[in-house]
Amino acid sequence: MLNYTHSIPTRIFFGEGQISHLDDALRPFGKRVLLTYGGGSIKKIGLYDAVMKILNDGGYTVVELSGIEPNPRIESVEKGVALCKEHRIDVILAVGGGSTIDCSKAIAAGVYYEGDDLWQMVASRHGTLKALPLVDILTLSATGSEYDGGGVITNMKTNEKLGNMYTFPAVSICDPTYTFSVSKYQTAAGSADIISHICENYFSRTEDSDLADGIAETILKSVIKNLPIALAEPDNYSARANLMADSSVACSGIPAYGKQSTGWPCHAMEHELSAFYDITHGVGLAILTPRWMRHILKKDPTCAWRFVRFARNVWGLSGDDELALALAGIDALENFFRESGIPMTLTELNIGAEHFEEMAAHANVGGYLANAFVALTNEDIVEIYRACL
Amino acid sequence: MLNYTHSIPTRIFFGEGQISHLDDALRPFGKRVLLTYGGGSIKKIGLYDAVMKILNDGGYTVVELSGIEPNPRIESVEKGVALCKEHRIDVILAVGGGSTIDCSKAIAAGVYYEGDDLWQMVASRHGTLKALPLVDILTLSATGSEYDGGGVITNMKTNEKLGNMYTFPAVSICDPTYTFSVSKYQTAAGSADIISHICENYFSRTEDSDLADGIAETILKSVIKNLPIALAEPDNYSARANLMADSSVACSGIPAYGKQSTGWPCHAMEHELSAFYDITHGVGLAILTPRWMRHILKKDPTCAWRFVRFARNVWGLSGDDELALALAGIDALENFFRESGIPMTLTELNIGAEHFEEMAAHANVGGYLANAFVALTNEDIVEIYRACL
Repeated sequence: MLNYTHSIPTRIFFGEGQISHLDDALRPFGKRVLLTYGGGSIKKIGLYDAVMKILNDGGYTVVELSGIEPNPRIESVEKGVALCKEHRIDVILAVGGGSTIDCSKAIAAGVYYEGDDLWQMVASRHGTLKALPLVDILTLSATGSEYDGGGVITNMKTNEKLGNMYTFPAVSICDPTYTFSVSKYQTAAGSADIISHICENYFSRTEDSDLADGIAETILKSVIKNLPIALAEPDNYSARANLMADSSVACSGIPAYGKQSTGWPCHAMEHELSAFYDITHGVGLAILTPRWMRHILKKDPTCAWRFVRFARNVWGLSGDDELALALAGIDALENFFRESGIPMTLTELNIGAEHFEEMAAHANVGGYLANAFVALTNEDIVEIYRACL
Repeated sequence: MLNYTHSIPTRIFFGEGQISHLDDALRPFGKRVLLTYGGGSIKKIGLYDAVMKILNDGGYTVVELSGIEPNPRIESVEKGVALCKEHRIDVILAVGGGSTIDCSKAIAAGVYYEGDDLWQMVASRHGTLKALPLVDILTLSATGSEYDGGGVITNMKTNEKLGNMYTFPAVSICDPTYTFSVSKYQTAAGSADIISHICENYFSRTEDSDLADGIAETILKSVIKNLPIALAEPDNYSARANLMADSSVACSGIPAYGKQSTGWPCHAMEHELSAFYDITHGVGLAILTPRWMRHILKKDPTCAWRFVRFARNVWGLSGDDELALALAGIDALENFFRESGIPMTLTELNIGAEHFEEMAAHANVGGYLANAFVALTNEDIVEIYRACL
């Protein structure tokens, strides 16, 4: 086990009706609220009205920033920061999925950013920053942004999509009933995101972090069990609740306890897909992950033991031929994604090979993926992209 | 899944050499430190000297409270509070196991307690309290006090041992090498404590908290794997590190996510044993747990499904006869404790039946254990105690 540092200052209120804690969560921070949300699904499910009633009854002054994009853009961060400054906002209330929360984190930190260009804040490496307090109400089980300090912001002008640390939510209200109306497509994509977060930590050289590996396998098995139920019965509370809890703990850092950091290759490669083509993050991850797995298993068969463990402990497969077993586990993952309704080729998304070299160079900037579970060169990354066509 | 609220403000520095963060951890709080510890084992392993060098080099003023008991007593809390007030202490540094940390939490809160009698603070129900900041350096993998807000304080005059909430450590430094010198007896007892914390949540009527149950099984399997290694090779870093991480997460509340609270019957019964006989907490838990399991399985066979799951998923047992399988899992746990060198009867600890009725009445005060996984009457508790003779 390697050394680690761990802290999550976020308070989670989990379960149906936990919006009853919203007023208590906001009140310590002040009365001037920036309410952030996306395309308006929160209005369709009645959540917007419920939130506004609580804010109005509590005497809050509310400024709204709506229309935050699925891959949130720097322009939304800029708008939010301007609103916070203009209206002397005390606290940000993000209502939505990972994109709205990510964008709100960058806004919260951007208010205190001293430079002229907020993209510089996004593009320079840093830990958490001084930020306005952030409260969120989660409506999608996917990124785990409700329980970590990071966010991912996109610049469509430069085709860049960059993850960074900003701030932890002070409070996250996680009510699984708000995900009942999430489409099958977004539900499946969200689960692919959870699976990918786990795989980025699980596929590591560290062999003796029993707790981290066991929790990773627990979350993978939970998603494999509960996603099909949620797809078949969108208002199955238990399935939605398990996926929501999985989402938060997948990103909590606990599944990384004591493990060698691996550079998160699928996320780096997917961020390029989203930056160039604005596709759904979880779909890009689902397409890439099994192809990345096959590529590294072929490139470095000494990593097969980890795939064998994945096949046995996650998929319940068995067999004496270790390579066959390893490949069967990868096939099981790809089939799971396909059966969940995710388009599993880039061709289906109308994405061709024309930018692969440029995307590979971006994903591997500074030799970032030399540090991966199996080191990746730009050529490796292009090959993985090609296998996704 | 039931609703839950979760927050752990503690920052963990985990791994060998993490004491390098001690100065940074203390400095924000001030320069006047109350250093608390137990019987002096920290001097034998050189940790006392290492801590004092950091404190002296950093220009801290240090006041010491040593001799904190294995079942920490109200008198130690009183002494600590008096020292904090007399020396205008800024921050408490607890160096030791759960007893030292528990006592230090009560001291930290006791400084702000406005009543005359600190035992009233211990004996009245409350959540976390206003408290001095607390930093700890952990030397025993057992209670998980390094990662929760609770503490257990004993009053030998009244034969009471009561758990309550006080404050979360601000920082916990968890270096597995500090546990290399822990005796086989205390190592095994500490692991029994970890197992018991998990069982108190795992044995619950809630069937659909996949994450919580999977994490519980992960921790149980990790302790079952790593305790024998640590007993055979006391300086096996990997085994000691896994036990230490298990200890913290077992008490983190995550293995309770969405599960019905069960009243922690073994802890309630054990606190009476310790209060009357001052025995090692983990040993009392190890003796009680399998007898409690057999008693409730007999009393209410509708709970057998949970024991079957325990036998299959934790012990890898199989079989078609569910009752036989359930009992085999319990036997496996009892054998595991016995093979770890724990005396598995009260008779071996020179404890007889003379106080069982009184202890049962205390453990079940206010009908506390009517809320257990299987409701327990005072008569049930006496029967369980008798099965331990």
